[in-house]
Amino acid sequence: MTIPTSPRPVYFDCDTGIDDSVALAYLLASPEIEVVGIGTVSGNVSSAQAAENTLRLLALAGREDIPVAIGAHDPLAGSFDGGAPHVHGVNGIGNIDLPPAVAVPLAEDAARLLVRLAHEHAGRLSVITVGPVTNIALALRLDPDLPSRVADVTTMGGAALVPGNVSPVAEANIWNDPEAAAELLKADWPVTLVPLDVTLENVLEEEDRRALLDADAPLARAVGEMLDFYFDFYVDLYGRRSSALHDPLAAAIAVGGVRATVAPAVGVVVDTSNGPGRGQTICDLRGQRLGPVDQPGAHVRVVLGTDRPLAEHLVERMLAPALVEAG
Amino acid sequence: MTIPTSPRPVYFDCDTGIDDSVALAYLLASPEIEVVGIGTVSGNVSSAQAAENTLRLLALAGREDIPVAIGAHDPLAGSFDGGAPHVHGVNGIGNIDLPPAVAVPLAEDAARLLVRLAHEHAGRLSVITVGPVTNIALALRLDPDLPSRVADVTTMGGAALVPGNVSPVAEANIWNDPEAAAELLKADWPVTLVPLDVTLENVLEEEDRRALLDADAPLARAVGEMLDFYFDFYVDLYGRRSSALHDPLAAAIAVGGVRATVAPAVGVVVDTSNGPGRGQTICDLRGQRLGPVDQPGAHVRVVLGTDRPLAEHLVERMLAPALVEAG
Repeated sequence: MTIPTSPRPVYFDCDTGIDDSVALAYLLASPEIEVVGIGTVSGNVSSAQAAENTLRLLALAGREDIPVAIGAHDPLAGSFDGGAPHVHGVNGIGNIDLPPAVAVPLAEDAARLLVRLAHEHAGRLSVITVGPVTNIALALRLDPDLPSRVADVTTMGGAALVPGNVSPVAEANIWNDPEAAAELLKADWPVTLVPLDVTLENVLEEEDRRALLDADAPLARAVGEMLDFYFDFYVDLYGRRSSALHDPLAAAIAVGGVRATVAPAVGVVVDTSNGPGRGQTICDLRGQRLGPVDQPGAHVRVVLGTDRPLAEHLVERMLAPALVEAG
Repeated sequence: MTIPTSPRPVYFDCDTGIDDSVALAYLLASPEIEVVGIGTVSGNVSSAQAAENTLRLLALAGREDIPVAIGAHDPLAGSFDGGAPHVHGVNGIGNIDLPPAVAVPLAEDAARLLVRLAHEHAGRLSVITVGPVTNIALALRLDPDLPSRVADVTTMGGAALVPGNVSPVAEANIWNDPEAAAELLKADWPVTLVPLDVTLENVLEEEDRRALLDADAPLARAVGEMLDFYFDFYVDLYGRRSSALHDPLAAAIAVGGVRATVAPAVGVVVDTSNGPGRGQTICDLRGQRLGPVDQPGAHVRVVLGTDRPLAEHLVERMLAPALVEAG
């Protein structure tokens, strides 16, 4: 059991959010990576509220050293729709109260933070997005060479061969800013897309939540508390109190704690029309019947299968962050 | 073993086509229904070629009494794209030669034939479509009351939770005339949609084909011959010579020879935009995780599961049409 001497630098872009909070707690407990900056975006809540939530979570973890930048309030086209209070609570973290943080957001916005970090960690920076990707699109516009300085991008988003969760075909993160997602997917960097196909198959159960509530770590306990609200939302979907692990799965795949076993590199485009398919992440999965086949030139991997369920690994890591195994 | 005394009247709309030919042979061998008219449409081949093929197939079966009407050459928007000679052969029936028929197509077009048959068999007529549904849309325009006189519509088309076969999300029949499909699905009649999700799971194997080649019935033998061409096309998909049973599955579900066991009634719309989702049959399958749930007011059933594989039943029926079991 060794901890890597040089953890990979990660820029984390989030709309914090209950499952964003779980993902952040997981990342902070992961020795394989070091979160060097966090940008927020409107999605589950406004980008400003997401930054406030993020700072309070970092304070609980004693990690107020990590810079947090407020990102885009509105998507590239249109405006922020008010978020998902029925899923994440009015404050985005299940309506629990967390103590105010001492740290404040950076003066620079999230897109500029990402561009700066990509220069500081050129060739090594991993980008993980778990919300609408407006900030990433803005960063690409600020610095078209950004892809050459970023090692890889892992994005929670899309629904390849399962129904969407906002429209019959659109998943919320992509739906909330299809134009930005299209720009992210077009850029020339390796993208791992983590869609509902796999996130819905990774479920946190009530016993997992109770384990978090009993944790020594204040952040794990807070996450256990806020999941109470989230668990109610998922009763209709799973038939019991529990939750999908959307954002945490993207984080775990980026970290290497869970490995993608079926993840063909294929053509992926976002439907930015105003037709009934708007916001759909169209993955060209034709010709995959006999097994995963990479399409020549494709730089987006669509995760359709993983090596193990996330929940046990996630809880273990959040309960004993200091003793965690190396990836 | 009884043969129903009053078989249900069927209007069959096709773009004949190898699997259309299999479907037609199956329908002619099915005592539960009586084919009272056939309309053709451009798809696998032109509507005129489809009519020629259909007449020759009927002649082989001694059923030139069944009226055949040539339908739309072009889709509602745009024009016929030339068909799929790489799939069905240049003549649509695997480039085999069949003796010319004595019968000729009706003077009326397919849409008018459908409208007339719906009056003659008011309340009882079943419509089965296995090609683009241009004729059905034209019939709806000729007679907006058509749905009140048709018992039900079974349509081979769409790809609900599997990749398309023309674009990443579009299936060929719907792709070839999305505007017509939209009109069919909007009309107020019960529709059973038989998408690639199930048709690709029903496969005819080489031993089935050889059984057809050895049949007494000339039509079954002809179908066995033309399948030789079709089997080559499917090697890339299945990894062996074989074929999907797209059109025959729609026919068998309409007849009742195969029963849909998972077929929720849900909202279904066709993407008629010019975006990347054009031609997609968007089925709202959210909320089905705990089991099939009908959406209130939905009149389109999407078949996602069936009670038995089609191939054995199909071959048995085509080999011994006179001895066939009742549905």
